[in-house]
Amino acid sequence: MALSTKPYKGARDFYPEDKRLQKYILNTWRKAVERFGYQEYDAPLLESLELYKAKSGEEIVSEQTYTFTDRGGREVVIRPEMTPTVSRMVAAKRQELAYPVRWYSIPNLWRYERAQRGRLREHWQLNVDVFGIDGIEAEHEMILVTDAIMREFGATRGMYTININSRQLMDYIMKDYLGLDSVQVHTLSKLIDRMHKMAHAEFVADADALFTPSQRDAGASEKLLTILGAKQLSDLPDQIQSSEAAQELSSLLTMAEAAGVTNTVFDITIMRGFDYYTGVVFEVADTDPENNRSMAGGGRYNGLVGLFGVEPVSTVGFGSGDVTLANFLESHDLLPKLKPETDVYVIPIGDSYGQAQKLLATLRSEGLRVAVDSTGRKPAAKLKAAIKHGIRYALFVGESELAEGRFTLKDLSNENEQSLSPERIVSTILDERRQAQD
Amino acid sequence: MALSTKPYKGARDFYPEDKRLQKYILNTWRKAVERFGYQEYDAPLLESLELYKAKSGEEIVSEQTYTFTDRGGREVVIRPEMTPTVSRMVAAKRQELAYPVRWYSIPNLWRYERAQRGRLREHWQLNVDVFGIDGIEAEHEMILVTDAIMREFGATRGMYTININSRQLMDYIMKDYLGLDSVQVHTLSKLIDRMHKMAHAEFVADADALFTPSQRDAGASEKLLTILGAKQLSDLPDQIQSSEAAQELSSLLTMAEAAGVTNTVFDITIMRGFDYYTGVVFEVADTDPENNRSMAGGGRYNGLVGLFGVEPVSTVGFGSGDVTLANFLESHDLLPKLKPETDVYVIPIGDSYGQAQKLLATLRSEGLRVAVDSTGRKPAAKLKAAIKHGIRYALFVGESELAEGRFTLKDLSNENEQSLSPERIVSTILDERRQAQD
Repeated sequence: MALSTKPYKGARDFYPEDKRLQKYILNTWRKAVERFGYQEYDAPLLESLELYKAKSGEEIVSEQTYTFTDRGGREVVIRPEMTPTVSRMVAAKRQELAYPVRWYSIPNLWRYERAQRGRLREHWQLNVDVFGIDGIEAEHEMILVTDAIMREFGATRGMYTININSRQLMDYIMKDYLGLDSVQVHTLSKLIDRMHKMAHAEFVADADALFTPSQRDAGASEKLLTILGAKQLSDLPDQIQSSEAAQELSSLLTMAEAAGVTNTVFDITIMRGFDYYTGVVFEVADTDPENNRSMAGGGRYNGLVGLFGVEPVSTVGFGSGDVTLANFLESHDLLPKLKPETDVYVIPIGDSYGQAQKLLATLRSEGLRVAVDSTGRKPAAKLKAAIKHGIRYALFVGESELAEGRFTLKDLSNENEQSLSPERIVSTILDERRQAQD
Repeated sequence: MALSTKPYKGARDFYPEDKRLQKYILNTWRKAVERFGYQEYDAPLLESLELYKAKSGEEIVSEQTYTFTDRGGREVVIRPEMTPTVSRMVAAKRQELAYPVRWYSIPNLWRYERAQRGRLREHWQLNVDVFGIDGIEAEHEMILVTDAIMREFGATRGMYTININSRQLMDYIMKDYLGLDSVQVHTLSKLIDRMHKMAHAEFVADADALFTPSQRDAGASEKLLTILGAKQLSDLPDQIQSSEAAQELSSLLTMAEAAGVTNTVFDITIMRGFDYYTGVVFEVADTDPENNRSMAGGGRYNGLVGLFGVEPVSTVGFGSGDVTLANFLESHDLLPKLKPETDVYVIPIGDSYGQAQKLLATLRSEGLRVAVDSTGRKPAAKLKAAIKHGIRYALFVGESELAEGRFTLKDLSNENEQSLSPERIVSTILDERRQAQD
């Protein structure tokens, strides 16, 4: 029986035209984050299961990881996220590193989940983290980086918002203001995280059910719903507004605005799924309500590095996935037209492949990207292949051309033909390439 | 108990200085192969186990793969090589593609093997394949590409050889010349493949043992040893020299020589481990005998695409691993000095972080890669961090500098200080970057 040609379910084959788009996204990420002084790192695809049991959300480890036992009896996981790994790497060199450490990575990550728009089993994720800054300058920088990335892709600030909240603020509200115990806080946090995925009445009932009778009598449900209805910090009760967490969040929003990031939004329902966040959390959302997947998300997580038995270090980071981002770019018509990585398709006429080698070597040494049709087909069939490949120029090379030192260069975008020396072929094509980049 | 900071056994963490080297290798590969018209593709990390059972060498599938059953009951493998995958992808679009198809990829691959120099469990491998060329023009191109890659890394032709053989030639020798049956051919092929890893006497005994008494009486062992001692095609018996396979190999060596590749070597012991090769096979070897790992290897495999139930297509390809290549570059002193991806480290003096934002935005919008020290440390401690980061320039930004519009730029490579406007800071650093690239 013939083998199947399908890729693994929920994952993608990248044919050259798909890979070009992915390279555009990855390189645009690199360009944007390197402007803020971030340096690229990487790590093995496999990690020990222990690493994820420690601090990720429970659902991810128990239901969504690719976990198996290797031939040496180790329990291993194909990484579902990069944050535990980068924390491990910082911990391993805790004393040697120069702080602030600014690192980024673009790993492929795996989660076993039902495939749907914006969610695949394998995706690439930009991870940006800064270690060693205690103050909100770190959060401020992350918001600028996030904004710079979206702008680098051509998005205008009307197309997306940066939605910000604070785990510390939520803790203050739940513990100090509503008087909940830590089990209630954990349950309510998870409930708020799922809030937008459930009917409002269901949320109200579930929230009400977790309060004690005396909390209910004290109006906990009503207070909670009022708070969750706040559209800005100033909508919150005075006591909450004067908390340290609210003050910090207010400063952050002011600083972002001063730096020209005019599309930040206080969003009290942003919790982020992972258990490890300890401070400000944020997400980048499409202003088009049809797209409910965030394009990036992150926050402060000061506790992870310390789990490796070294002194903890202040950390703020975020991730951004290639699938949700590509969907965003597509729906806002921001995808660029990308060309093949080949400049010219050489068409030998007759039996001139061997004699054409010197010309090919010259063109390549001058920087041209040259494919040669070394099949036995007729020139017309070779030209057809050049067109199908989407390569801009075709160059005809026969014995008389080789003798003369001039060759016909055909621009397949407009059918223009010129008879040129090798030097002029190089300059014509390199000029065109430079113009296309501007 | 604290979590371990170690990466998975046999795999590497890439700290920024390690990642820079890897990026240099990957980008040099890209540059070299794109000059020959190859376009990048990619595919999922996981493939079905079926794909490898079909045609890889037995040892790899049964002992060296990372194989497991996913949560949906599928038997899957973390890809140990890319050839089955690229064959699957070509087969899936067999009718639609424009031939010759020239594709390359740089996947990370996993094999469960004992870690040793030049062998790790995770490595990155350049894969270059051309589909749709029947003649030896395909092998010729692959030899040029292989050579161009080594030259792009700065290697001279005295540092490496390209060792070439032909499976067809070996088949002719074993079947037609020695008269072996297909089981004997398979056993002897595997034995020759392991020849350099065993004592000569052991090889002789094992070879002799697989012949029948009548073959032995006809002098099969002596003939085999004479043949395996051939240093060039002309050392072979006339009958073998006049075979189609030997003629083809001879033409190929002549064509490579004519194109300036003066370091090809006929090596009758090159078999390549995989079962799928059908014609010319080759490897790139270090001329330093201390290094016995090949830096690249491949050949013709015309049968794989046809396994997917479509019309077969002529294919030649090779792979090159990052670990063996990095070892080669290191031992030949070809590793370049690589710099951090950051141009300048901004040191705010006093409480000027907020006020410095406009300057930072200007420098970044002009293309500078700017890290800012937003910790609360003293300027001296910040300067120390800049040096430890290995960033070339430090820029001091205090309130008086901001008022004046001129800032002290310190070149940490030579301690020179200049007081410059933002425009001059940009031009000074961009000029230096351009010079470093030339």
